[in-house]
Amino acid sequence: MAKAPVLTPQAEDFPRWYQDVIAKAELADNGPVRGTMVIRPTGYALWERMQREMDDRIKVAGAQNAYFPLFIPESYLRKEAEHVEGFSPELAVVTHAGGKQLEEPVVVRPTSETIINASFSKWVQSYRDLPLLVNAWANVVRWEMRPRVFLRTTEFLWQEGHTCHATQADARSYARQILHEAYEDFMVNVLAMPVVVGRKSPKERFAGAINTLTLEGMMRDGKALQMGTSHELGQNFAKAFDVQYLSAEGQREYVWQTSWGVSTRMVGGLIMGHGDDNGLRLPPRLAPTQALVMVVKDGEGVGEAAAKLVAELRGAGVRVVLDDRTDTPFGRRAIDAELKGIPVRVELGPRDLAEGNVTVVRRIVGTKTPTALGAAAAAVTTALVEDQQALHDEALARRESRTTDVTTIEDALAAAATGWARIPWASLVDGGEARLAQDAVTVRCLIRPDGSVPESDDEPGVIAIVGRSY
Amino acid sequence: MAKAPVLTPQAEDFPRWYQDVIAKAELADNGPVRGTMVIRPTGYALWERMQREMDDRIKVAGAQNAYFPLFIPESYLRKEAEHVEGFSPELAVVTHAGGKQLEEPVVVRPTSETIINASFSKWVQSYRDLPLLVNAWANVVRWEMRPRVFLRTTEFLWQEGHTCHATQADARSYARQILHEAYEDFMVNVLAMPVVVGRKSPKERFAGAINTLTLEGMMRDGKALQMGTSHELGQNFAKAFDVQYLSAEGQREYVWQTSWGVSTRMVGGLIMGHGDDNGLRLPPRLAPTQALVMVVKDGEGVGEAAAKLVAELRGAGVRVVLDDRTDTPFGRRAIDAELKGIPVRVELGPRDLAEGNVTVVRRIVGTKTPTALGAAAAAVTTALVEDQQALHDEALARRESRTTDVTTIEDALAAAATGWARIPWASLVDGGEARLAQDAVTVRCLIRPDGSVPESDDEPGVIAIVGRSY
Repeated sequence: MAKAPVLTPQAEDFPRWYQDVIAKAELADNGPVRGTMVIRPTGYALWERMQREMDDRIKVAGAQNAYFPLFIPESYLRKEAEHVEGFSPELAVVTHAGGKQLEEPVVVRPTSETIINASFSKWVQSYRDLPLLVNAWANVVRWEMRPRVFLRTTEFLWQEGHTCHATQADARSYARQILHEAYEDFMVNVLAMPVVVGRKSPKERFAGAINTLTLEGMMRDGKALQMGTSHELGQNFAKAFDVQYLSAEGQREYVWQTSWGVSTRMVGGLIMGHGDDNGLRLPPRLAPTQALVMVVKDGEGVGEAAAKLVAELRGAGVRVVLDDRTDTPFGRRAIDAELKGIPVRVELGPRDLAEGNVTVVRRIVGTKTPTALGAAAAAVTTALVEDQQALHDEALARRESRTTDVTTIEDALAAAATGWARIPWASLVDGGEARLAQDAVTVRCLIRPDGSVPESDDEPGVIAIVGRSY
Repeated sequence: MAKAPVLTPQAEDFPRWYQDVIAKAELADNGPVRGTMVIRPTGYALWERMQREMDDRIKVAGAQNAYFPLFIPESYLRKEAEHVEGFSPELAVVTHAGGKQLEEPVVVRPTSETIINASFSKWVQSYRDLPLLVNAWANVVRWEMRPRVFLRTTEFLWQEGHTCHATQADARSYARQILHEAYEDFMVNVLAMPVVVGRKSPKERFAGAINTLTLEGMMRDGKALQMGTSHELGQNFAKAFDVQYLSAEGQREYVWQTSWGVSTRMVGGLIMGHGDDNGLRLPPRLAPTQALVMVVKDGEGVGEAAAKLVAELRGAGVRVVLDDRTDTPFGRRAIDAELKGIPVRVELGPRDLAEGNVTVVRRIVGTKTPTALGAAAAAVTTALVEDQQALHDEALARRESRTTDVTTIEDALAAAATGWARIPWASLVDGGEARLAQDAVTVRCLIRPDGSVPESDDEPGVIAIVGRSY
């Protein structure tokens, strides 16, 4: 296969590589309004697969989908003081509609805590209504000064979950349930991304939350990407919007709340977490197309053998596509399949086939193996399982090799040049976090020495993961 | 079962009944910004089922999902003259964002022809790129003067398909393929709504289209609801946005286009097309919950029998839910199940069960049948199939009995008081359509005498379906 240098190598210029792969794999374009994006079919198929996998997990966790309005009265945002302060600089505001100036401007939702709590205040009456577990798939708008496709866009797609509970313990437990059972399970087992799961430092918390839990992925340039968050909101929004319930004992009580979200930013994480100089590498469990059966060129029996193999793979539950576009040069088709990260290709040419052979090409581990036609389907299904694991293990090994245990801020900054540092949180509390910020290094999350999530910031022995981030 | 008069009867006040059922079945609330809606979990589950069924059909028709920005530069709308004229009065405009006034105001999409064609002009180069078949699931905004939940809301959810073809014949054929294979098939066979499929009169066409095809459902008050449309756009947008391709012969040609959409308005159609004085009646193929196994009250073996029946039904592929909330009065639970239109209930009480019996309640046909426990699962699956058909047939019979063949405008107006009229289109072309409009009666669509869709307005023998509409 001829390989044209279609992408800037990662080692040469990682941000440029990222732009190149998004363009050449036809994942997305910039939209005409600054910071917006057009998600092309190839890119959207990744998001659709993420949605389906996440939605299943969210439903297993008991939440039901609903939809809340795009437009929020400006006054709602002001009801929770920290929240409005956090989001004001990013708001898009509709001032005219229906040919007239509006009496009260409306904000395009940057997140929906305020408008959802206005509904919750009507829906929640009694302890029997709790827990109330709601999720919404929606677009949100945050005006971005330094936009970057998928990672930081003026408009993005996400899910936002919002829940009400009778007690703080219930809310805390649910925020963790979503964190681990929906998000971590999906990211580790479907995206093959060995995220570090921890707690945000107070400085990095969501505006209006009393605790933010996070999942941080390491990209192939050593930077961190926040892949998702799950917040305990305490009673902040409940008090601002008067969400109260009558307890079994007949007392009026404010509910305890959580909110949690993942967005199209995960597509950026998938690209930068696994992609190489030839393009994307998609984990098989996520890949919209898991296997591509390619007719190299036409010849006796080739089309029939390809069709039979496609049917066999489909019967085995593989998401398979036939590429028999022999009027397009094979090399160009193969490069395109590499760019788009299709996990396994089976190449059928007349010459090999005459000897009963096909070639199985594994994108993730990079092997090309001549295989008897009759054994091809089994080779594909085996490769899909093995390479899911291989991709995860490779990412985990990279993360571990690029994470350094340090005790001083100087060493943390040095480690952050190429990866992450693990440093005692106690050594950062007195101005250390601010010192790191001067060099654009942040505390990504706090974890316990055993890797689990601390119950509070001031647990003894808590470790901070620090690094540069997207 | 005690029946409280929870809903205003349809015969007394149909619009009031509609509001009542939406509130009592917990389908939706009004949002705080005028004309917006909150779609509650029970209502959203209906939309999710519609999405899944439609999305499958759209993919079978070869279209791929993508996403285009919410925000459109104001100047884009002006590029197609009829389009901007049609939509200007309904636009919501963002003038401020990121703390500043924008240099060019941006419009919140009312539909995406303009911004999608800006992408198409980049994506389409050669005849090899055609047909280009794209669909998007999105929210759109049209500022409504007389909003009504689900039917006419300032913000609604929909899918919008947009396609490019090499020839007018290809575009025409695809607009019809979507009309029949995606929309009509879904509405008739899943929604159980016997829609009339036809062509819009020139006056009723989409702003910018050369032909609009439509599916019209009759509501239980005799009014029409436009359930979906499929447009031929000709080359109007292709010329406005310079979407050209190089033909096999080496000529630069403008593409021919279609667009097509269905929205959350279908939820309103489902409510008004099938609902009765006790609430919704959901067609089994659509219903998120097809069967409810209800423990009437606790007693020896009741819980076990219920659990076993649930497992049996689930094994048979039925979407089944167990209701064992015996701390809530049974009558209230039964009323709620009626309100929400769950097709089949199986009621298990200790007394009947002691004799080996349960009661199968069919919401659509209104029967309550004592049934041996061992035969209950089969009775449910049979009922689901039969009642899907029964609901369709009932709606078809209603439509036929309320549709009158007439030859004069006076008779058409009389017929439109309670239903639809069929009138020769030729008798309306000279001012007749305007005369009808004075009485708020419109041409819903044009059909051939055999019910098929005319190729043009001036085919001899074309019949106009006229009526009042939502």
